Amino acid sequence: MQTLTLNLASTIVDYALEKMDAINCQPLTVAVLDTGGHLLVLKRSDGSGILRPDIAIAKAWGVLGMGLGGRQLAQRAEAAPAFFAALSSISGGRIAPVQGGVLVRNDEGSLIGSVGISGDRSDVDETCAIYAIERAGLVADAG
Amino acid sequence: MQTLTLNLASTIVDYALEKMDAINCQPLTVAVLDTGGHLLVLKRSDGSGILRPDIAIAKAWGVLGMGLGGRQLAQRAEAAPAFFAALSSISGGRIAPVQGGVLVRNDEGSLIGSVGISGDRSDVDETCAIYAIERAGLVADAG
Amino acid sequence: MQTLTLNLASTIVDYALEKMDAINCQPLTVAVLDTGGHLLVLKRSDGSGILRPDIAIAKAWGVLGMGLGGRQLAQRAEAAPAFFAALSSISGGRIAPVQGGVLVRNDEGSLIGSVGISGDRSDVDETCAIYAIERAGLVADAG
Amino acid sequence: MQTLTLNLASTIVDYALEKMDAINCQPLTVAVLDTGGHLLVLKRSDGSGILRPDIAIAKAWGVLGMGLGGRQLAQRAEAAPAFFAALSSISGGRIAPVQGGVLVRNDEGSLIGSVGISGDRSDVDETCAIYAIERAGLVADAG
Repeated sequence: MQTLTLNLASTIVDYALEKMDAINCQPLTVAVLDTGGHLLVLKRSDGSGILRPDIAIAKAWGVLGMGLGGRQLAQRAEAAPAFFAALSSISGGRIAPVQGGVLVRNDEGSLIGSVGISGDRSDVDETCAIYAIERAGLVADAG
Repeated sequence: MQTLTLNLASTIVDYALEKMDAINCQPLTVAVLDTGGHLLVLKRSDGSGILRPDIAIAKAWGVLGMGLGGRQLAQRAEAAPAFFAALSSISGGRIAPVQGGVLVRNDEGSLIGSVGISGDRSDVDETCAIYAIERAGLVADAG
Repeated sequence: MQTLTLNLASTIVDYALEKMDAINCQPLTVAVLDTGGHLLVLKRSDGSGILRPDIAIAKAWGVLGMGLGGRQLAQRAEAAPAFFAALSSISGGRIAPVQGGVLVRNDEGSLIGSVGISGDRSDVDETCAIYAIERAGLVADAG
Repeated sequence: MQTLTLNLASTIVDYALEKMDAINCQPLTVAVLDTGGHLLVLKRSDGSGILRPDIAIAKAWGVLGMGLGGRQLAQRAEAAPAFFAALSSISGGRIAPVQGGVLVRNDEGSLIGSVGISGDRSDVDETCAIYAIERAGLVADAG
């Protein structure tokens, strides 16, 4: 079964930065986590803000934590603000319920990790995450 | 007087997972706490997200913390979001004001613990909690 | 490949409590975590102290965090107290460098989770953890 | 003046992992921080423990925080354990006073960031950090 090795995770990060250059968007920070929510690879582009690593990690962690892609998390956060405010505290600030957090599945559909990107508008962040995951031959689940 | 022993708490958890299978809902995490808000038993189903244990515990802790079932907590959180945001901090993130947290009472009506379930829609989580508590011969107080 | 399902994790916990009864030791709390350090099953015996769940989880988390069994963690903590004091803060209190935290490996030697037990002397806690893991047909790595 | 760009930081990380393979040591996690103590690049090798990213970052952050290499921090922590216990709390767990945290200077001697490595014995971690920094044409200050 295909799992998320360091090599594969590094490839995803580099594809995301390649996409950033191609569409000339704001400087991004890209994080890839394993299924336990632990960092495998992170790269912060020159000029990407100092909070971006924490945001990118929180986008990637949140989708694993809830088992839902960033789009669904964002919709649910709009619908139930009090619960998501509570989730922020429950998770110790580990959740960013917004686009740009994407679950990574292998060809069997098994969850093998997640990607979180922060730096531009959340839909642009998500576009780069999905591109990178698919370019790496994996399945992107943005919720 | 009937209290919440490990055996009884384990029975509640297993009934809740039995219900999960019966209604074929999303994979659940089930927590049972004593009256002090301390964990007695927790089981996380295969495929249940990594934040689910903290959410299930927070649902169970919150109902004990306020002495109100999850339904009332959810209604109050909608009505007074600023206060519940404060409660989140006051409790150190121990409260999840949403359905799925249920107080457990014995046949004398005495509080003996609580159940918290997370994994599916909060009303489904609550259904499994109430089923399990009553199936164990106890009184479920969902607020 | 054999992984740590809820059923298997539950079996380990129940074997540990069976051992507790057999040797008539102090009431134990037993936790089983997946490889990401997230709780799969926890049971706290009647009379086991209210901090025991956190200690059991920290024993199990610490061995995963460092990739070393509890015995080695204990030895290293004796040898480098300042570093382990720092590790306590770095990990947010997630590490208990003492016997009773045991890595769980499958027959291929792959890490599939960990067990942490707290309640009696740490060597007794460890004995119950090793017994339970091996009784479940898995490999116990106590470091 | 030479600064620590993402490209340069990535090069350092990859040289460190190249060294890991060359000496066949334990799987390492390598972090590179900018002068503000914020993550630029992190890579965690397959099999490196889940706490390793936090330790690697704390090694790199600690040397920046005190303006001293990991060797000096380790010596001072042995000599003044109470003070370093306080520093752990003061820094919110951001300091790991042990070898493996190395300041990065440019050819003018200006501080441009730091490297932290965790996974093997701390002297081995440091060896890989120094190798990588010098291989990248920069000055390694291990204290």
